[in-house]
Amino acid sequence: MAQPVDEFDLIARFFEPLARDMPGAFGLRDDAAVLRPDAGYELVVSADAIVAGIHFLDTSRPDEIARRGLRVNLSDIAGKGAVPLAYTLTLQLPSETDEEWLSSFSGGLAQDQREFGIGLLGGDTTLTPGPLSLSINIFGQAFENKLIKRSSSRENDDVYVTGTIGDAFLGLAIEKGEIDLSSSHDRAELVDRYRIPQPRVFVGPKLVGHANASADVSDGLVADLGHICEASGLRADLSLSSIPLSSAARSTVTDNQPLHLSLLAGGDDYEIVFTAPKTAHDALVAISRESGVLITRIGRMVEHKIGAPRVIVRDIAGDQLALINGGYKHFGRSV
Amino acid sequence: MAQPVDEFDLIARFFEPLARDMPGAFGLRDDAAVLRPDAGYELVVSADAIVAGIHFLDTSRPDEIARRGLRVNLSDIAGKGAVPLAYTLTLQLPSETDEEWLSSFSGGLAQDQREFGIGLLGGDTTLTPGPLSLSINIFGQAFENKLIKRSSSRENDDVYVTGTIGDAFLGLAIEKGEIDLSSSHDRAELVDRYRIPQPRVFVGPKLVGHANASADVSDGLVADLGHICEASGLRADLSLSSIPLSSAARSTVTDNQPLHLSLLAGGDDYEIVFTAPKTAHDALVAISRESGVLITRIGRMVEHKIGAPRVIVRDIAGDQLALINGGYKHFGRSV
Repeated sequence: MAQPVDEFDLIARFFEPLARDMPGAFGLRDDAAVLRPDAGYELVVSADAIVAGIHFLDTSRPDEIARRGLRVNLSDIAGKGAVPLAYTLTLQLPSETDEEWLSSFSGGLAQDQREFGIGLLGGDTTLTPGPLSLSINIFGQAFENKLIKRSSSRENDDVYVTGTIGDAFLGLAIEKGEIDLSSSHDRAELVDRYRIPQPRVFVGPKLVGHANASADVSDGLVADLGHICEASGLRADLSLSSIPLSSAARSTVTDNQPLHLSLLAGGDDYEIVFTAPKTAHDALVAISRESGVLITRIGRMVEHKIGAPRVIVRDIAGDQLALINGGYKHFGRSV
Repeated sequence: MAQPVDEFDLIARFFEPLARDMPGAFGLRDDAAVLRPDAGYELVVSADAIVAGIHFLDTSRPDEIARRGLRVNLSDIAGKGAVPLAYTLTLQLPSETDEEWLSSFSGGLAQDQREFGIGLLGGDTTLTPGPLSLSINIFGQAFENKLIKRSSSRENDDVYVTGTIGDAFLGLAIEKGEIDLSSSHDRAELVDRYRIPQPRVFVGPKLVGHANASADVSDGLVADLGHICEASGLRADLSLSSIPLSSAARSTVTDNQPLHLSLLAGGDDYEIVFTAPKTAHDALVAISRESGVLITRIGRMVEHKIGAPRVIVRDIAGDQLALINGGYKHFGRSV
């Protein structure tokens, strides 16, 4: 682009249309916005930033970057049983950002706004000499005092997870050329699971009243379940064979137990891991059927032993397997 | 620091203590937070990011960077007549960030949390190969449907501004060595006004019921008043001699009308510009006395003429002065 982008012009052209259905956003023409949860609900907030080269590949398409930014935040809200409403976006753009980039980026936001029924509430745009980054605050609503916390798991709860685990981890490894698959269909499926996270926004709110504790799986199943265990003062006892895998992932890890185990530590699943009492089982089966999302029992919450790992995984013989890495830490992790 | 900082360790040591008085933050140990305005109030949100080398000098002290980040956001809330409650922080740290830096930074946040009665609600921390940046979302509450908007100014309203204008602009020019002052006292006062913004959080909420329209002055008086004019379909007619200047600023611009005028276009004042009917005058005098903050009438809202500037400034003879720049645009502006 020949001309540098003017901030006000940029907002008017690319971002104002995204705020049209949010009356409290005042068309992005004021210094603040107003947000009202429905009667009987309380406001839920979560914030996550993503940085080029750390949380997504430098080669990512602008619309995919936008959708990733929204979806990792939507996953946090879904993991708490809340329904998403709106978001704010602060965007740091390298000076070479052009109109084509902005058009694709805002198009990605628009697409996911429609898909998830949310709108843009406000934000800030600035140039940076550093990498592109976006910081999103997402707002949702939950029934008053009904947010599903990490800290409220109970001993003997069953541990469940939505969807399948490890697809995004394998998809990223394929993108980086670290592994290859003979089936182009499997390859595409796994790469897609990495590129476009599928936050479980329709399942999350249905878990209210059934799940005792929950978290979204972003840093890896073992790490995020570990957070529930620590916050609740318990440990989780899982069986490797019960971890739900897609057929593409299953064919990849056949006869490779270390790789199979590493899926439990890989990040970017954006599923929900939760614990629930035995009495919730039938309701969970119904929720799975209704939403079309797999819900699988993978283990049980037990008493914690001091010094022992928070999450243990057993093979089919019941022997405890060694986990090398408790989960990726997104802080400074390179994609 | 010899060791790289672990994200969870960093949060526990430097940020968790900042969330202690916010029950809805769950000790920063969950994926989302809950925020409840008081009965009869609605939630107000604003977001602003600041980037090293663009919005503050690379040489700034960490505690000052933290306080600047909070205060530019507090100013947005104050400018709408709302009372601040809490904030989220997403922080992008260069890899060389050490514990000393983090300790000073979080100390600055703690200091301003106490001063303004707010708490940390959540956030995200990540490394970046780029410059240090922080993105803050600030939350406040305003009486339901009482947020003071930009768009509701009326013809014949008086235009008022809090505090004094131009100090921070001169303070930055001194910091950059562009101007010098003989009085070290004046120099220190102006530099301080640039380094530590003083958001008008105690005045803002008192303007509810008196001001028809308002905005905080961050991009320059002419630019921000211009936004009120545009949103309200009016123009503002100001008198240069009525613009309130500190004695340090007054001595600097004596006999230098171009510099005097440039104060109206300089940014970083973090005052409130607002319009109010004549009937509000006595109440505003009382608010000024009660808060100890100067409130000055600087002009009047009049009918807009198509093609004319939104804000005009007259000299003492009533002649219109030429404004070279309508206000700084923070987008990509270098400090």
